[in-house]
Amino acid sequence: MFRPAARATIAAVCLVAAWSVLSTAARPQVPDMLPSWHDGPSKRAIVAFVGRVTRAGGPDFVPVPERIAVFDNDGTLWSEQPIYVQVAFAFDRVKTLAPQHPDWRDRQPFKGVIEGDMKAVAATGEKGLLEIIAVTHAGSTTEEFATIVTGWIASARHPSSNRPYTDMVYQPMLELLACLRANGFKTFIVSGGGVEFMRPWAERVYGVPPEQVVGSRAKVRYEVRNGVPVLARLAETDLVDDKAGKPVGIHQAIGRRPIAAFGNSDGDFEMLEWTTSAPGPRFGLIVHHTDAARESAYDRGAHVGQLARGLDEAPARGWVVVDMKQEWKVIHPFERR
Amino acid sequence: MFRPAARATIAAVCLVAAWSVLSTAARPQVPDMLPSWHDGPSKRAIVAFVGRVTRAGGPDFVPVPERIAVFDNDGTLWSEQPIYVQVAFAFDRVKTLAPQHPDWRDRQPFKGVIEGDMKAVAATGEKGLLEIIAVTHAGSTTEEFATIVTGWIASARHPSSNRPYTDMVYQPMLELLACLRANGFKTFIVSGGGVEFMRPWAERVYGVPPEQVVGSRAKVRYEVRNGVPVLARLAETDLVDDKAGKPVGIHQAIGRRPIAAFGNSDGDFEMLEWTTSAPGPRFGLIVHHTDAARESAYDRGAHVGQLARGLDEAPARGWVVVDMKQEWKVIHPFERR
Repeated sequence: MFRPAARATIAAVCLVAAWSVLSTAARPQVPDMLPSWHDGPSKRAIVAFVGRVTRAGGPDFVPVPERIAVFDNDGTLWSEQPIYVQVAFAFDRVKTLAPQHPDWRDRQPFKGVIEGDMKAVAATGEKGLLEIIAVTHAGSTTEEFATIVTGWIASARHPSSNRPYTDMVYQPMLELLACLRANGFKTFIVSGGGVEFMRPWAERVYGVPPEQVVGSRAKVRYEVRNGVPVLARLAETDLVDDKAGKPVGIHQAIGRRPIAAFGNSDGDFEMLEWTTSAPGPRFGLIVHHTDAARESAYDRGAHVGQLARGLDEAPARGWVVVDMKQEWKVIHPFERR
Repeated sequence: MFRPAARATIAAVCLVAAWSVLSTAARPQVPDMLPSWHDGPSKRAIVAFVGRVTRAGGPDFVPVPERIAVFDNDGTLWSEQPIYVQVAFAFDRVKTLAPQHPDWRDRQPFKGVIEGDMKAVAATGEKGLLEIIAVTHAGSTTEEFATIVTGWIASARHPSSNRPYTDMVYQPMLELLACLRANGFKTFIVSGGGVEFMRPWAERVYGVPPEQVVGSRAKVRYEVRNGVPVLARLAETDLVDDKAGKPVGIHQAIGRRPIAAFGNSDGDFEMLEWTTSAPGPRFGLIVHHTDAARESAYDRGAHVGQLARGLDEAPARGWVVVDMKQEWKVIHPFERR
C-alpha cells in the first residue's frame, strides 16, 4: 500500500488515485481499488467516507470491529430484472417438480409457469407467487436445499444475456466490497431474498461467508431421522427481511448498528434509515438504475425494485445516489473481458 | 510461533508443549496456550484435534472458513450456579422496577423476589419465572436494554464470591477460545440465554463480537418515534435457543455446520449431536461440573444445568467429558492473581 510520506493522514482508502488528483506528480504505482467507477460524486463520497473512518486519530475514526457495512443483494449487487433470480429459480423448480404433480397442468399459477405463460402467472398476483415459492422451497432439508441451489446456479442462464446469473453481478460493487474489506470493514448481505438461496454461492461470488448473509427465511425444525440429524425446511415464514424487516434482520444477526448501508430500492429504505440515523460517521448509498442500454432503467413505477421514497429523501438524508449510467464504466464483470 | 524443523507436520496448535513430551529436549520457548489445563485426556484431545484440522496437506485438514466452533455460555464459559446470571439480573430488575408496580408487593412471584423469599418464587415454578423474565425484559428499545445490561453487569455481584459475574468465567475456557482463534477458528457463543443479555459484554470478556453471539431472543419491531428509528423489544419470544433450538439458531446465524461444539448440560445435546454427526473431523466436549470445593458439583439431578443424556451417550459418540476437578488447575481467572 502506497503511503505518501508528506501526507501521513491519508489512510489506505479505496481510491488512493483520487488523492493523486490533488497532487502534482503522477503516481502510477498507486492502486485504485474502484477502477470501474468514474471519478464522479459517488466515488468521491465513498473515498472520502472510507478515508474519514480509517484515519487513526482523526475525529471520525471508527475502530475496526465497528466497521460494519450492509449490502442489499437484488438490484444492488446483481441484476434483478426482468425478474428476481430467486423467482426464476422457483419457476425452474416448478418445471422440475411438475411430473410429480400432475394436477399442476391444469392449475394456475403452475400451469402458466409450465407453459411459459407469464401473463397467466402474473394474473395470480402475489398470492400465486407465494404459492410457487412455498411449494418449491419447502419439504427438503437445509442441506438438500443447498445442493439444489448449487446445482441450479451452476446451470441456469439469465434470459437476456444467456450467462450464468452469477455473471450478472455488478463489477463496481464487487470492487466496493473488496475495497471496504481491505479497509477493515466486515461486509454483510442483508437481502429480502432467501438466506438459503444466497449462502451456497455468496462466498465464491461476493467473498461474503454464510455467517455474514442475512435474508428472508423459512422456519426450520431439528429432527433425527433414522439416527441422522437434519434441519427440515418448513412451509412457514420465519422472517421477511425486507423494508422494516431489514433492521430486524440486522439486529438479530449482527447485533450492532452498521455504519454504512448500500441498497437500490424502497425495500432498503429502513435499512438505510437505521444505519444513518445514529451519531458518528454514517454512509448511505442507493444504486439508481438509469442505464437502459447497458442494464435497465427503472425506479418509481417498477414492478421489481421500486424506488420512489429513497429518491425523494436521499438529498435531505445525505444519502449518495449512484447514477449507474454516468458513474459506472462497466456494469458486469464480463464487459471487461 | 515455534516450528520444529524436524516435524514440519506439527501445526501451530494450542499446546505445543504437549508435543514436547514426545521430544527429548525441553523447549521452554514453546508457548502453551492452555496453561490452566492439566495434561489430562481432555487437553490431549483438544490439542490432537486442533493439530489434525490445521495440518496443511493432512487428511483431516479443514480450511480456515470452515473452522467454526460453538460454545454454550451458562455452565460452559461461566458459572450458572446458584442461579442463571440472567435470572439474577431479572430479580434485580424486579426490585428496581417495583416502585412503579405497587401491586407487586402482594403478588407472587414478585412479592417473593422483592422480599428475598426464594421459596415463594420457586413455588410459582417455570410460569412464575417466565412472568418475571417477560416484565423485566420487554418494554424497552434494544439500545435502552443494552444500556441497562451494561450498567447491571458492571455493578452486580455473584452471591457467593461477591465478585462481578464477569469474573466468574472459566479461565481454562478463555484459554481454549483464544487457542482456537489463534488456529484460525471463528468462535461463536450459542446459548439458551438471551442474546441481548450477552452481547453488551461478550466481546470484552470472551473476545466474541456481537455478530458471533447467538441466543434466545424476543421479537423486536422497527418503529420511527418522533423521527428517531428504534427497535422496540416485544413481550414475545422469537427463538428459544436451547436443546433442539440450538441447531436452529446455528443455522440461522451461521449457515454452516460447526466442526467443534462445547457445552455442559443436556440443553447442549442437540448442538453437540448436530456438530459431530457430519463427515470429516468433528469435536464435541462437555464440561462436567465435578468440583464442589472450587465451584459446584452437579449433573443428573441438577435444577440448573442438568446433565444426564450427555454423560450417558458421550463415550459412544466420542465426546470428550472434562472432569473439572481433575483437569482444571484453576477455575476462575482471579484464582491466579
